[in-house]
Amino acid sequence: MTEPLSQGSVIGILGGGQLGRMLSVAASRLGFKTCIFEPGGDCSASHVANYHFQKPYEDEDALKAFAEASDVITYEFENIPTAALDVIETVRPVRPSRRVLEVSQDRLTEKTFLAGLGLKTAPFAAVDDAESLAAAIAEIGTPAILKTRRFGYDGKGQARLTSPDDAAQAIQDMAGQPAVLEGFVDFSCEISVIGARGLDGQVACFDPGENVHRDGILRTTTVPATVSAAQRADAVLLTGQILNALDYVGVLGVELFVTPGGMIVNEIAPRVHNSGHWTQQGCSVDQFEQHIRAVAGWPLGDGSRHTDVVMENLIGDDMDRLPEIAQEPGTSLHLYGKAEVKAGRKMGHVNRVKP
Amino acid sequence: MTEPLSQGSVIGILGGGQLGRMLSVAASRLGFKTCIFEPGGDCSASHVANYHFQKPYEDEDALKAFAEASDVITYEFENIPTAALDVIETVRPVRPSRRVLEVSQDRLTEKTFLAGLGLKTAPFAAVDDAESLAAAIAEIGTPAILKTRRFGYDGKGQARLTSPDDAAQAIQDMAGQPAVLEGFVDFSCEISVIGARGLDGQVACFDPGENVHRDGILRTTTVPATVSAAQRADAVLLTGQILNALDYVGVLGVELFVTPGGMIVNEIAPRVHNSGHWTQQGCSVDQFEQHIRAVAGWPLGDGSRHTDVVMENLIGDDMDRLPEIAQEPGTSLHLYGKAEVKAGRKMGHVNRVKP
Repeated sequence: MTEPLSQGSVIGILGGGQLGRMLSVAASRLGFKTCIFEPGGDCSASHVANYHFQKPYEDEDALKAFAEASDVITYEFENIPTAALDVIETVRPVRPSRRVLEVSQDRLTEKTFLAGLGLKTAPFAAVDDAESLAAAIAEIGTPAILKTRRFGYDGKGQARLTSPDDAAQAIQDMAGQPAVLEGFVDFSCEISVIGARGLDGQVACFDPGENVHRDGILRTTTVPATVSAAQRADAVLLTGQILNALDYVGVLGVELFVTPGGMIVNEIAPRVHNSGHWTQQGCSVDQFEQHIRAVAGWPLGDGSRHTDVVMENLIGDDMDRLPEIAQEPGTSLHLYGKAEVKAGRKMGHVNRVKP
Repeated sequence: MTEPLSQGSVIGILGGGQLGRMLSVAASRLGFKTCIFEPGGDCSASHVANYHFQKPYEDEDALKAFAEASDVITYEFENIPTAALDVIETVRPVRPSRRVLEVSQDRLTEKTFLAGLGLKTAPFAAVDDAESLAAAIAEIGTPAILKTRRFGYDGKGQARLTSPDDAAQAIQDMAGQPAVLEGFVDFSCEISVIGARGLDGQVACFDPGENVHRDGILRTTTVPATVSAAQRADAVLLTGQILNALDYVGVLGVELFVTPGGMIVNEIAPRVHNSGHWTQQGCSVDQFEQHIRAVAGWPLGDGSRHTDVVMENLIGDDMDRLPEIAQEPGTSLHLYGKAEVKAGRKMGHVNRVKP
């Protein structure tokens, strides 16, 4: 399929969280329908989608029916079981591709891929047990951070080592999962670039945003970031390099540490990214629509930033502030329709446009 | 019910067209679900809604079930059958209220209401037959325009009279329906104000937009309109007067002719309005969200305009230009997911942000 998808086509989305929700809304703006595959009921994305397959990822018949109901398939999270991809791929194109998932599902593979492109990463070493951790500490030193190779997000599956004495506890925290030890990077700030690449190879990147985390979770992204024009160009160019190397189709989030010695790639996410939510108010075409355009074989849209924005996540009991936030001038609300407020749970975000 | 609706509440929407579609998306941003009542299948709004009652307006059981599935009910068009309201109203609050529908469903009632507020309208007279048309022409003169009192939109149900000789044809065009003869107004431009009023009586108006019609259908709305600050204030104040007089809850569209002698009210629409679509790119909170906020008992949001916008409707074969429009810089697309392109059919719109 190389023709751009026509009005009324169906975009299949694996995953029913807030990213799927906002992808679905963006798809509607382009005249597409969406079909969500998500085992959980009453999920965020299903509220604004045409179809919801509420089935487990092990249900091959459901996966096949989902793929057949869709014209193209994309996803809102990277940890899609390989067996599920096996089923879907034979029916419809999956974008971004399987190779992208293979690279980004495993921190070790990802870092090796990035280093292979000549990009800088934090020093890293594979850790499978106490012995290899000792060797990694000897190579990288402390402080350092031990992370599971797979299934980590929002600070989960991580252990900090301030000295080699923390090694035993860190290994225990990994619960037998293969891991990577990462050296600490002394950075002035963290930025991220949301890049997009079309089916025809066209590349477009949004302006880098500056991120602030707390407790391992993104709190705010601010555009413009406090970086120089040269740093901005660096960040955008290396994002393009990653997109091209992966023959990528869709939107990719690239987290970068800004250091005196240049940009260090922290991690990449093969999907729309929390740090790109500011684009909803800052650009004519936001990250969600850019992703849908790419996977639908459409031309990318104009993602240039027309205004300054601060995005703030609403996490857990931040929702108590909703009555005040709803009345703030210059503020756009984006709530995810999640029934239950939990500590650390992303409930929504706000974009504040700077006057 | 005076408490603001909480996360996960359901907004019932009568009508499943593009306005319902964009209301549904706005409701999702505030964490609400939506339930669409629309006899037609595969309707625009159902693509992004939780529930769709695809039943005729005569089905009282379906109307009751729809109302019971909703926490509050609103609508995207004004021609809701009275009998349907009778059923729904006993179950859940309908906002804006029935009185608003009664006023706006009938051109004669509407004009009498506006004149009663001391607002200027085009000269008008009721016409039921050839005799009363002759009397109306004697009073108002020609050129004039004869319109059915009910069910007219986008130039339908209208006949122009350039001289009294056109009277017989005009009466025939009305096909026996009661009508209103309206005198022509010599205006410099047409503007519209999208006003909102909350459950607590708070009023907020968007900046007036300047409208250009072709063949009786809106083609473009431009903000800012080419009117003076005094005219802008006039337009906003009279909109507030109408909202308060109707004890209105929700968003109201007011079409105004700008004349040397002041503002003349052309018509009012008790709903979100095509001429307010620019707010999607021009404001932190757009007309759709403002309406949902009002009917949900939330505080109104900040509707101040932060950028200049030109909204253009995509009608019928305007869709042939989609490949070019999709690549224009500074342009946001909003397509309605309608399967079939027809002449005169609104297929979508674009908002062009001025650099």
